[in-house]
Amino acid sequence: MAERVLRPAPLTAAAFAPFGDVLEATGAPDMVINAGRCGRFHDRARLDFGDGRAGLSLFRADACPLPHVFDLVERHPLGSQAFLPLSDDPFLVIVAEDADGQPGRPRAFLSAPGQGVNLLRGTWHGVLTPLVDATFAVLDRVGDGVNLQEHRYGTPWSVAPP
Amino acid sequence: MAERVLRPAPLTAAAFAPFGDVLEATGAPDMVINAGRCGRFHDRARLDFGDGRAGLSLFRADACPLPHVFDLVERHPLGSQAFLPLSDDPFLVIVAEDADGQPGRPRAFLSAPGQGVNLLRGTWHGVLTPLVDATFAVLDRVGDGVNLQEHRYGTPWSVAPP
Repeated sequence: MAERVLRPAPLTAAAFAPFGDVLEATGAPDMVINAGRCGRFHDRARLDFGDGRAGLSLFRADACPLPHVFDLVERHPLGSQAFLPLSDDPFLVIVAEDADGQPGRPRAFLSAPGQGVNLLRGTWHGVLTPLVDATFAVLDRVGDGVNLQEHRYGTPWSVAPP
Repeated sequence: MAERVLRPAPLTAAAFAPFGDVLEATGAPDMVINAGRCGRFHDRARLDFGDGRAGLSLFRADACPLPHVFDLVERHPLGSQAFLPLSDDPFLVIVAEDADGQPGRPRAFLSAPGQGVNLLRGTWHGVLTPLVDATFAVLDRVGDGVNLQEHRYGTPWSVAPP
């Protein structure tokens, strides 16, 4: 079956709000510290670790050049998951709204330098897809229970270059 | 009074262990996920939010070119604090061991691309000092109480280029 094509949109807080938080230092800081040399944009993620605890891990991911073809998305029903790239390189964020326990049509976003994301608990998303090999700090739930659900679309999707 | 000179050392997990965790994707991953395309280095920080909760903030900090002269260090008695640069650029990490409630001689470390740090609760440290303007994700405690102690050295220190 032919792939269905998505084009990535710029990653903006407004467009991404149903799926999670865009973590970026834009606009006016909430506090200015260090004798004026640092702006703090305070507590910008809707973190949720449920009955678990916060854990900070590192992910080292291979490059996924565009076009990127996928059929798999997943979600974590027990907690939020934040991805913070330790580099300036853009990465692709694939998410989908839920419809009665199944993911709907996926959406693709492309990050800009200085942006990370926090996925809300239970948000359908693609696996980590940097455009070049990249390391991310990942903040998610550590705890007991089954915190992974996967879904394969019957027809693959392809994310084209923007 | 003349400044006292420090030279930064490379940021390694072993040298930094008394002060906190070096967050980096080195060695063998704890898990390989995403059909072999991603290594997970799991739960690598000694996070501690005490009676508060985890909060994820962004810091936008001005460059501190070397030599960097300082007399101020601070610590957070109620929780850990992680700094995750959203870029490849190195940053300076200044820390000091505690001696009866006062910081001892400071030590300076210079990060490599792909490294972040997590400072243990109560670790004396300098303010955020990237070598170029930089954005960091910061994971620290959100909650009530006084979570800042400051100390000024009687004689300033200068961090020389490595």
